[in-house]
Amino acid sequence: MTKPVNRRIVLAARPHGNPKASDFELVEAPVPVPRDGEVLVRNLLTSLEPFNRILMGNANGDQVPIGIGDTMLGFTVAVVQESRNPAFAAGDHVAGITGWQDYAVSDGSDLRVVDPHAAPLWTNLDVLGMPGLTAWVGLTEIARPRSGGTLVVTGAAGAVGSAAAQLGKLRGLRVVGIAGGPEKVRLLLDELRLDAAADHRAPDFAGQLARAVPDGIDTIYDNVGASLLPALLPHLNPDAQIVVGGVMSQITRTGAAEGPDHLPDLLRAAVYRKATIRGFNVMEFFDRYPDFLAELAPAVAAGEVRSRTHLFDGLEAIPETFPEMFTSRAPGKMIAKIAAG
Amino acid sequence: MTKPVNRRIVLAARPHGNPKASDFELVEAPVPVPRDGEVLVRNLLTSLEPFNRILMGNANGDQVPIGIGDTMLGFTVAVVQESRNPAFAAGDHVAGITGWQDYAVSDGSDLRVVDPHAAPLWTNLDVLGMPGLTAWVGLTEIARPRSGGTLVVTGAAGAVGSAAAQLGKLRGLRVVGIAGGPEKVRLLLDELRLDAAADHRAPDFAGQLARAVPDGIDTIYDNVGASLLPALLPHLNPDAQIVVGGVMSQITRTGAAEGPDHLPDLLRAAVYRKATIRGFNVMEFFDRYPDFLAELAPAVAAGEVRSRTHLFDGLEAIPETFPEMFTSRAPGKMIAKIAAG
Repeated sequence: MTKPVNRRIVLAARPHGNPKASDFELVEAPVPVPRDGEVLVRNLLTSLEPFNRILMGNANGDQVPIGIGDTMLGFTVAVVQESRNPAFAAGDHVAGITGWQDYAVSDGSDLRVVDPHAAPLWTNLDVLGMPGLTAWVGLTEIARPRSGGTLVVTGAAGAVGSAAAQLGKLRGLRVVGIAGGPEKVRLLLDELRLDAAADHRAPDFAGQLARAVPDGIDTIYDNVGASLLPALLPHLNPDAQIVVGGVMSQITRTGAAEGPDHLPDLLRAAVYRKATIRGFNVMEFFDRYPDFLAELAPAVAAGEVRSRTHLFDGLEAIPETFPEMFTSRAPGKMIAKIAAG
Repeated sequence: MTKPVNRRIVLAARPHGNPKASDFELVEAPVPVPRDGEVLVRNLLTSLEPFNRILMGNANGDQVPIGIGDTMLGFTVAVVQESRNPAFAAGDHVAGITGWQDYAVSDGSDLRVVDPHAAPLWTNLDVLGMPGLTAWVGLTEIARPRSGGTLVVTGAAGAVGSAAAQLGKLRGLRVVGIAGGPEKVRLLLDELRLDAAADHRAPDFAGQLARAVPDGIDTIYDNVGASLLPALLPHLNPDAQIVVGGVMSQITRTGAAEGPDHLPDLLRAAVYRKATIRGFNVMEFFDRYPDFLAELAPAVAAGEVRSRTHLFDGLEAIPETFPEMFTSRAPGKMIAKIAAG
């Protein structure tokens, strides 16, 4: 029997703008050995996140990037192979941040046990994982929309956006989703059953938006960043709240953004609509996981909150698949199947 | 004896960009007569505010403007001439919003009695008036800076800015003022005794700013709007708070602002520094006046909080003086003396 190896996807080069397959390299290493207090996990699934692009380093320097040759950090669902930590047993399914690799050793601080029978395993990387928690924190800890108000979600066909939009529906809000292209708009209306949707690539986007928010906008959950927000600002109601969940449109930008300057529009909204604009780091809200799951897990089990994923085979396929997140615009969370289990 | 007339400054034309004297007209009308529950006041002082420009109507449509021929709204110090309201007696000094005119009738809801011996009357239009309340609300109700942190105030030589900066000092913050030109910078350091100052018109503004905030920025009190904020964002500490007290640089703007687009910078600050950006309408905080005065009035009386005003003679001089607020940049709140008393 050949000794198992640990295949790892490492950062080979820092991308300038959109990432490409050659920015990654698949290398092999020995399977790591857990010490006291640690567990060895075998990764089953890992998700591709905009966050991964940030960790590759970008021109903005928003976040300290990982080093060249380092294993790409990645959210995972894994199974415990060997445990020297009393909180975990061999065979446990766990969700964690164990990276784009076959095996990993963890002290357990990033792991939580998941029930493989409660919901499909991949939901732990999507609506019941970080994207779902990001949506929930934004609408629970950052903004607290009043029932009956209007919530507009940008990037509404994305993992965070679709979770935020459906959470808004659960809480009695009028929810308007914004996405690009007719396929995603159909998803918002037919699958996610939002109250209205607007296609930001359509020539009459402004008209679609105006018709979708007849009573103005009370809350924005923005996942896109500067490219869509200016169109929404004229519709803000007094005391509007803007949750900045992400800045997808800015992640691969290099250099200054083209004018006109829309910062004055946002500041005027702050002064004249008394708007609050607020961002957050979901990593600081891990302790809210039980509350989040208590609200979302039953809704997912009941089919009231849905998600769409794009599952593909093989750790080795990540380098060529990851760049598609920034070019093709198919809806659905991209998740790599690393192993069966 | 000639019957007294009420001289009023009315809006004659809507300015496009900077206002000019011909946008106003001085008209005469009979002195109004108070009814039951009302008081007749004679105005002594009135202040010129950026807010007045907004009420003249601007391209942004941020606020419903007053009508052509309407009397300009203005903050005032006045003396009660005749009272049919039990809360006021003839001879009382009051601060109110009784407009750019000699006389006004009020139901009393906008008036508060002031003690003419406690502090110079004009302080009720400055550090103990709306500008001071605006500063106080921003640092009390909107942001709550922690003692020991760094507060940066833009437009720090202005009425709101200098009040905010000195309030920050009272509360144990490291306070850095930003203003344009060496005269204002000297005012910030010598008169207001701030910890540091930076001249945004100086060629080495970026270097001055960097040296002024060695520990980063925890709170920004921004009175200027989009023109200064982008320079500050790279210095933001985690969980930074940005109070948008005003958008002076935007008030006379017509059309789109020139690029580059700085909105992405602010949204990235929201996400990666977990910044909160928040505006407010000071008019909604009138009920906090007693708390505000309890903190500020003793500090003003003790000379711990100072202000500089530019007092000028005559209601009739307002039309030619008001436009200077947008062109010349002398520090100090502009206050018109309408009558002695």
